[in-house]
Amino acid sequence: MLSKSQISLIKSLHLKKFRNIHKLFIVEGLKSITEFIHEDYTLHSIYYLPEMSPKVVNFLQDIKGNEISSNELKKISALTAPQGILAVFKIPQYDFNLEDLRSKFTFALDFIQDPGNLGTIIRTADWFGLSTLICSMDTADIYNPKVIQASMGSLSRIKVFYCDLKELLSTCRLKVYGAVLNGKSLYESNFNDEGIILLGNEGSGIRPDLIPFISERITIPQYGKAESLNVAVSSAIICSEIIRKIKKT
Amino acid sequence: MLSKSQISLIKSLHLKKFRNIHKLFIVEGLKSITEFIHEDYTLHSIYYLPEMSPKVVNFLQDIKGNEISSNELKKISALTAPQGILAVFKIPQYDFNLEDLRSKFTFALDFIQDPGNLGTIIRTADWFGLSTLICSMDTADIYNPKVIQASMGSLSRIKVFYCDLKELLSTCRLKVYGAVLNGKSLYESNFNDEGIILLGNEGSGIRPDLIPFISERITIPQYGKAESLNVAVSSAIICSEIIRKIKKT
Repeated sequence: MLSKSQISLIKSLHLKKFRNIHKLFIVEGLKSITEFIHEDYTLHSIYYLPEMSPKVVNFLQDIKGNEISSNELKKISALTAPQGILAVFKIPQYDFNLEDLRSKFTFALDFIQDPGNLGTIIRTADWFGLSTLICSMDTADIYNPKVIQASMGSLSRIKVFYCDLKELLSTCRLKVYGAVLNGKSLYESNFNDEGIILLGNEGSGIRPDLIPFISERITIPQYGKAESLNVAVSSAIICSEIIRKIKKT
Repeated sequence: MLSKSQISLIKSLHLKKFRNIHKLFIVEGLKSITEFIHEDYTLHSIYYLPEMSPKVVNFLQDIKGNEISSNELKKISALTAPQGILAVFKIPQYDFNLEDLRSKFTFALDFIQDPGNLGTIIRTADWFGLSTLICSMDTADIYNPKVIQASMGSLSRIKVFYCDLKELLSTCRLKVYGAVLNGKSLYESNFNDEGIILLGNEGSGIRPDLIPFISERITIPQYGKAESLNVAVSSAIICSEIIRKIKKT
């Protein structure tokens, strides 16, 4: 049985403002929750239907689980079709160090608003073994339930930092590859073993004040008539091509 | 001013059942509507806010435009944030011919349920110059408003056919590249100038009864820990790599 204050707390975590106040976020679905636990995220509380009980018992540690009804789950879930289990985790605090960006490729996202796209980019980054993601302050919040849903557990393995991209790019001393519409063909571009891949907003592109920091303008060659690609699709094509090239050499 | 019967007709088109009965579908947003008109889709009716009037007048041809209020637009729109204009088009009828698949690459989608993913695949196919898409009968409906939204006008340029994939694959006499988790590296695979790229459902993969028709099993190499990629992302990475290889030779 859920108390009013539990319902009120969990529902408040659907919103960024309250996630920041409480330093908590929610994850739904057994697979994703298991991945966050596996990556040592700290469980705050967990709520599940009675039939999930045998699967949950293994990772409760010192937390008491809460069996709830499907009606109660609907009240606290951010999904239209709840997945039988919802966990509240503590938002981890980790320090950002420029050295974390050496010897690897890292996406820098400039004003990516759509949470589904952000979650998909995190999932793709995790598939290709990237470990860090940089976001502009106005990019969607990674703890938005839709981001977590689209990232399919991958957020548990990727460190994400929000910062002023202008400041970062001006101080990082890394090659910055900017995804633009009229640059050099991605297929003909060469990549060393480290760099920043800068992706802009789908509608407005990379912000003008970041353009001067781009060392190489890259473009996915267009053979048809679509005016643009979805940003999660662009990031994936670029990431695949970079990894293909650097793993071959 | 919208009549009750107009509202009822347009709202019914949010559902596949009524799109099939009326042979009509809706497109929202000036850019997408313009692209469907440019590709000779037949306009059935069009509804827009007064401020859109000067932009609409050019393509009305023999159709009378309907200026409506934003409250009326909200009633008929499938979007949470309507874009000021909504058009109803006739669903085109075109015959499928196996010859349409020669000398090119075509995606065959097996049970892709998410309309956002389907729309994104259509947009990517259009970017890379593919002209046709094959879908299993249980794949999402291309005239679903969410598909049209995600395809960003590209649906106007791609012919989409729904069919029994088993029947198609057994008769098409084309090489079938199946995207699987344990096949040959995409980067090491060779591609001729034609073929079918078969993509399965994210959860369940390609249906077992289609597996025997795969001529080459291909896999996007995984370097990190994500268990899978989003299906629209997979299709884009595969498409980019095929196009890169065949355009180079």
